[in-house]
Amino acid sequence: MKNVSFHDVRLTSGFWADRQRINAERSVRSIYDRFRDTGRVQSFDFTWKEGDPQKPHIFWDSDIAKWLESAAYVLSERKDPALHDLGAALIDRVAEHQGADGYFNTYYTVVEPGKRFTDRNCHELYCAGHMMEAAVAWYEATGERKLLDCMEKYAALIDEKFVRAQTEKFATPGHEEIELALVKMYECTGNERYLRMSETFINNRGRHLLDEDGESVGYAKLKQVQSHLPVREQREAVGHAVRAMYLYCAMADLALRLNDGELKQACIALFESVCRRMYITGGVGSTHIGEAFSVDADLPNDTAYAETCAAIGLCFFARRMQALDPKGRYGDVFERAAYNGVLSGISLDGKAFFYENPLEIPPEAAHSPGVRYPITKRLEVFGCSCCPPNLTRFIAAFGDNLYTVENDDIYLWQFASSEAELALAGGKAKIVQTTDYPASGLVRIAYHGPAARLHVRIPEWCADYCGPVENGFALFDLENGAELELRLPMRPRFVEADPRVLADAGRVAVQFGPVVYCLEAEDNGPWLRDVVLGDLSAATVRFEKEYDACVLEIPAFRHDLGDYGALYQTRGRAALRPFTAKLIPYFAFANRTESEMLVWTQAKG
Amino acid sequence: MKNVSFHDVRLTSGFWADRQRINAERSVRSIYDRFRDTGRVQSFDFTWKEGDPQKPHIFWDSDIAKWLESAAYVLSERKDPALHDLGAALIDRVAEHQGADGYFNTYYTVVEPGKRFTDRNCHELYCAGHMMEAAVAWYEATGERKLLDCMEKYAALIDEKFVRAQTEKFATPGHEEIELALVKMYECTGNERYLRMSETFINNRGRHLLDEDGESVGYAKLKQVQSHLPVREQREAVGHAVRAMYLYCAMADLALRLNDGELKQACIALFESVCRRMYITGGVGSTHIGEAFSVDADLPNDTAYAETCAAIGLCFFARRMQALDPKGRYGDVFERAAYNGVLSGISLDGKAFFYENPLEIPPEAAHSPGVRYPITKRLEVFGCSCCPPNLTRFIAAFGDNLYTVENDDIYLWQFASSEAELALAGGKAKIVQTTDYPASGLVRIAYHGPAARLHVRIPEWCADYCGPVENGFALFDLENGAELELRLPMRPRFVEADPRVLADAGRVAVQFGPVVYCLEAEDNGPWLRDVVLGDLSAATVRFEKEYDACVLEIPAFRHDLGDYGALYQTRGRAALRPFTAKLIPYFAFANRTESEMLVWTQAKG
Repeated sequence: MKNVSFHDVRLTSGFWADRQRINAERSVRSIYDRFRDTGRVQSFDFTWKEGDPQKPHIFWDSDIAKWLESAAYVLSERKDPALHDLGAALIDRVAEHQGADGYFNTYYTVVEPGKRFTDRNCHELYCAGHMMEAAVAWYEATGERKLLDCMEKYAALIDEKFVRAQTEKFATPGHEEIELALVKMYECTGNERYLRMSETFINNRGRHLLDEDGESVGYAKLKQVQSHLPVREQREAVGHAVRAMYLYCAMADLALRLNDGELKQACIALFESVCRRMYITGGVGSTHIGEAFSVDADLPNDTAYAETCAAIGLCFFARRMQALDPKGRYGDVFERAAYNGVLSGISLDGKAFFYENPLEIPPEAAHSPGVRYPITKRLEVFGCSCCPPNLTRFIAAFGDNLYTVENDDIYLWQFASSEAELALAGGKAKIVQTTDYPASGLVRIAYHGPAARLHVRIPEWCADYCGPVENGFALFDLENGAELELRLPMRPRFVEADPRVLADAGRVAVQFGPVVYCLEAEDNGPWLRDVVLGDLSAATVRFEKEYDACVLEIPAFRHDLGDYGALYQTRGRAALRPFTAKLIPYFAFANRTESEMLVWTQAKG
Repeated sequence: MKNVSFHDVRLTSGFWADRQRINAERSVRSIYDRFRDTGRVQSFDFTWKEGDPQKPHIFWDSDIAKWLESAAYVLSERKDPALHDLGAALIDRVAEHQGADGYFNTYYTVVEPGKRFTDRNCHELYCAGHMMEAAVAWYEATGERKLLDCMEKYAALIDEKFVRAQTEKFATPGHEEIELALVKMYECTGNERYLRMSETFINNRGRHLLDEDGESVGYAKLKQVQSHLPVREQREAVGHAVRAMYLYCAMADLALRLNDGELKQACIALFESVCRRMYITGGVGSTHIGEAFSVDADLPNDTAYAETCAAIGLCFFARRMQALDPKGRYGDVFERAAYNGVLSGISLDGKAFFYENPLEIPPEAAHSPGVRYPITKRLEVFGCSCCPPNLTRFIAAFGDNLYTVENDDIYLWQFASSEAELALAGGKAKIVQTTDYPASGLVRIAYHGPAARLHVRIPEWCADYCGPVENGFALFDLENGAELELRLPMRPRFVEADPRVLADAGRVAVQFGPVVYCLEAEDNGPWLRDVVLGDLSAATVRFEKEYDACVLEIPAFRHDLGDYGALYQTRGRAALRPFTAKLIPYFAFANRTESEMLVWTQAKG
């Protein structure tokens, strides 16, 4: 079973193609400019010295690496010589400044040269992993081996130090990433050494409970980096959410490639645990404390952390699970995150970003002292700017997420107008999707190739689909020249949360297809928690080009604040007055003025 | 206009008389024992030295003082020679260890002897104020002048240092209290010097914006101690809630006694500001950060601070406002606090206390990391144990809160079975109330005395009262021998909050008379936020002796958690199932096992 790469899938039009265009034309370049403004680009000159401004940070290499990876993906799809040159110049710097032994890290070369490989929490192997992902991407996009050669050399050093000799002060990285990057290196080069390296890091995890100085580490601290238990025994999504996602990705990669049933069972259980700690937007890691998972169902809306990178990581994990355990569930969670908690991280114009993605922006006048609220306006760059280039690489490679194949079985698990080349057991095949998804549930499929079986994911939101569904998929037999028309009835619906989600008790979220909606004060006036949505069957649905999606108008009610003479009064004295509530896609919030925003809303019973 | 003192009002039976009995027989003694366990009592021996355990704290004098005041109030009502001897022994220690110049403070005598009057935030004048209140109480209860003499001597020193010479490092105390205590000293002794001292402290407040070292103090820090503006210009309740209440009490005291209209207007505005920042229980100071007021309507339920002392302070303020500006509003707020957020501070057995009074105890399994939740089980003593002896003095002197008189006008503003002697312009009068309030709204009133006008407060909760009401009072003409029967129709009702109280949006609280109700998991099972209350007209009301109040049974609905296969699902898949919800008075929560608890509940529309 294999996920089809975006290299074989071209998005032709519609929602994701539009996002890719904005991404290629604006986001990738804008992030480069901000990375230059902040000194990240120049840090690759290795000229920084104490006293200079713009001191390189331990994670800057990873920012540049994800930008290189994003640029590579863009270059795979379109010619852009200037973009190529920006990337190639950075790669030249890597080759120029890499150590003779293969070591490459700006921070530990120019800022703390004596300290390499001494602190697992300082992102050294994390940066190495991202540089490896960039190297694979650049090579595959351009055929240029320079960065890949550098990273093969670096990987050899890491193999020697961490896998063979095990002489370093730590056995596994504090921030996972290199584990999944090594699998990409293996896939790209065919060199099994990288798979073994990844396996070693994965197997060592949770088995070394001492810190770099030989002191035992507290359980909470170990949990924060998923090192509290050997990974095969882990069943609960804990700790730093992005780290967890990257770890689980690597576990799923290895489970698939090594046919490791124990690892697969751990992945399945961990995925379910993630789902019990996930916002309706696919956001995960609800608390800013440790940027981490909390307990099941602890999902506060106004203080939600829900880092963009974590939602992207969840998509990466779900994609791997789709190949490992082909069930509709994974595609459902993928689209929950992709259309909501991932895309909310980037402005409609593609230039500004959220690191945190709350599900409510309360009125500023109602802010509690001492409560940490996320920012309410996207920024072009952050001090810790992992999310922007993570978004650009995710969007540029979105074609990664449409198909999985095995022999003559095709799994179509995400919808987007596209043309794909598939390598089936019976030979090459071409499959074309034409759809306005997520504005409509109509998907036309045209097929050319050998006889095959097409498994189409019927989304969890689509209870009205007519036809047999097994494990979340509807099965169609395909012959050469087959044409299918899939109708996924799409209407606005009220979604409720398990009552254990205290923050959402007595409230509903509105979904239309996979898209979660929100109210903004800009459209609806202030004090949104007072709004009571009415009859959903009277809602109007209107496509709005600005969003590449629909907006909803729903009959609703609210109180007149003038009816409250005192803070407390007998119910019924203040009447509910009708108005029409306008709801926009959650991913599009905060694109106008800074405004109150609400996802979980009251609704008539 | 004058509030009638508890010395002239004897509670004869019913709710408050029962509380006074438990208070006298158990609470006052229990607190003494805990104050002995913790070294507070022994600190009055002045023998502590560096290295000894149980180091005196800056506020311990005030704990002992409020205990002495409580004991005095108990001794006013009943003979208890043992209790008298415990108090008298402490008073002997005060006389013994008071400085030759009149100074009295344990901490600044035995712990930091060189530092007296150097730090306004170290509670020195606050402790002095509480000792003065105790001195007045003890003298009035026993006729023994020893403590009053000591405090007159101390007051003379304070007058010299802070009022005449103004030579000390600060001009007003960081924690208000002495201002109102000096008014009591004036009332007790007739010495106008004390009134002038109070006036000076009040007038100086907000006019000295430098700290003890001559540095200017930040605005937020000044607000925390109500020193950001001259008091006559203050219109917003800010900062530490207990300090604010004690300040406003003194302002109201002076406004009445000095006939100061500007001060009165400030008091009226500040009272209204308090009401915009007040829980339905009368709790104030919603945030633990600074134990302070937040912005209007910021009233989170699960993290509510709502210190018991602040609710008591609000009662003290409301009582003074009743005399200053006789409107029903003040008695309404008084009873909101007294029957709810004050009494929740003490267990039914009178021995254990809450410092904080949340309106929700969420399931422990749903606790967010990093969020500070109040404790869920009352304790017998706290490190900062101001609340227990504040409760005992409040309960013992509850008779303070029934009547206000002026000429031949009697204001009856709280209900309790009682006999009162009133001094009217036309001569002495006796008024007897007989009632089961708050279990019933029937109040029988018998009167003997000269012709008078009786203004009876018609509570804000009683919209069904038949008859004319002006400024919250119904007017009756009294002749000698008059008998009245007041019927305040009492039925359970749903109360809603102003929609700007985000925490309560879409929810109701249940009140029966002045009593706010809550659900506990002990009666209703867990996940209370899912409970939807149904038809209130089908509720059953049952008096329960344990609470001296009624419990309510209300038809209700909830989901079966087994109906949730996933965290999010289309509304309607899980049915609401009927059950009978049991609600108990909020003041009685947490008297059984530690349990989830909820005030603001969902209700059918």
